[in-house]
Amino acid sequence: MIVVKVGGSPGIDYDAFCKDVAALYKGGRKLIVVHGGSTETNRVAEQLGHPSKFVTSPSGYTSRFTDRETLEIFEMVYCGKQNKGLVERFQRLGVNAVGLSGLDGRIFEGKHKDTVRSVEDGKIKLLRGDHTGTVERVNTELLTLLLDNGYLPVLTPPGSSYEGVAVNVDGDRAAAALAVAFQAEALLLLSNVPGLLRGFPDESSLISEIPASEVERFMTFAEGRMKKKVLGAAEAVQGGVERVIFGDARISEPVSAALAGRGTVVS
Amino acid sequence: MIVVKVGGSPGIDYDAFCKDVAALYKGGRKLIVVHGGSTETNRVAEQLGHPSKFVTSPSGYTSRFTDRETLEIFEMVYCGKQNKGLVERFQRLGVNAVGLSGLDGRIFEGKHKDTVRSVEDGKIKLLRGDHTGTVERVNTELLTLLLDNGYLPVLTPPGSSYEGVAVNVDGDRAAAALAVAFQAEALLLLSNVPGLLRGFPDESSLISEIPASEVERFMTFAEGRMKKKVLGAAEAVQGGVERVIFGDARISEPVSAALAGRGTVVS
Repeated sequence: MIVVKVGGSPGIDYDAFCKDVAALYKGGRKLIVVHGGSTETNRVAEQLGHPSKFVTSPSGYTSRFTDRETLEIFEMVYCGKQNKGLVERFQRLGVNAVGLSGLDGRIFEGKHKDTVRSVEDGKIKLLRGDHTGTVERVNTELLTLLLDNGYLPVLTPPGSSYEGVAVNVDGDRAAAALAVAFQAEALLLLSNVPGLLRGFPDESSLISEIPASEVERFMTFAEGRMKKKVLGAAEAVQGGVERVIFGDARISEPVSAALAGRGTVVS
Repeated sequence: MIVVKVGGSPGIDYDAFCKDVAALYKGGRKLIVVHGGSTETNRVAEQLGHPSKFVTSPSGYTSRFTDRETLEIFEMVYCGKQNKGLVERFQRLGVNAVGLSGLDGRIFEGKHKDTVRSVEDGKIKLLRGDHTGTVERVNTELLTLLLDNGYLPVLTPPGSSYEGVAVNVDGDRAAAALAVAFQAEALLLLSNVPGLLRGFPDESSLISEIPASEVERFMTFAEGRMKKKVLGAAEAVQGGVERVIFGDARISEPVSAALAGRGTVVS
């Protein structure tokens, strides 16, 4: 099994991505796709008069503050526009894709965090009314049912709390949890950079290999959204996934390239 | 099997609807839910600066003109906000719902109509670039797989063309096609009116019974969106569905009430 997560940042070539996935899938590869939608969510939220608010935790991770209205906009973009856009591309390529959120069949399940700590002007503030969570359980039965019957699962946040409340879960870490649950041979985290860079944003400073045992040490090079990817990679390799690859989703055949070792390989 | 379609018009009580469906489902009823989202789509489309355009065919049916941008807004509201909103309600009620569009697994499949005839100022105009279709095939295998494994399917337009292109299909007629495919014992079409009214909008003029053989004759009483419901009902009973009920989704226990004969019963 290979879990492929494609991000939601500008520059990603979704047509090339889907074409590559379709070719691999038709060639007999067992795959699950996970996707993001962050940039488009920010754009739509702005247009709808409810701009996105991001919080930075005391440990330096940035995340979307997801109140109920934000959650609904998030669902519109991730589960509506992005998910069905990918499913349509796959259907046009003759792949019988099924798009699902982590809420459907409780595919991604975890604890609901209502309160988040945010560093603002050097002070730590407590913000309530957040709908976030971390994936602790994956419904592999439903996904196996789909895979065994010829459907390609295309998954997206949000997930479900244990009480059934929709919670915004990080897509990279959800993909990592999925890869661990299936003991995947590889987890690909594709975005709009060539991999982990020693000197962001200098793309010539690509780190091409990271030993699995040292992945946390490389956190120091991770900027912005890359932090969660490195965290996801650490969780995946610790959970028994053989290889995690940070790859470039702006190129043609981005999945094949990453599988061939292009990008940053954690193993 | 009972197919329950709930509309997207103002006044519908989705909490009461889901509670009633959950109780029936837990009591052993085999159910599939289909939903709409028209009013909310109009609101969001307006806010996003791409207001909905409706066309009236020479035979008097009104439908949404669905260009590519409208399709994406449609998907955001139907597949994102409305679908996941219902799935979340069911998950909170302990029902393991799975929300899917007709594009997923090609659940609703039909011909893509790119051109629509529109009556404007008494003249017939041809409009191109439409993404609409009519459901001709239903993927009952995927739905049966989900039902047999304890999942409640919650379905929504769009559907898929034979080429895999997303097409806006009418929710009522899609529900009718679904009811025919499963040879359902009942198809419930619930909206924000008590049923078919002899003198719309006078709710005391409810038509309580229509013989299946005469349903088309009653088309004359159908106003606006009710026209498609009567058409769907005709298609369903002609296709072998025992009973079609137009019921009120603004009341508590709207599904149980309709099953008990409250509303307009076509049989």
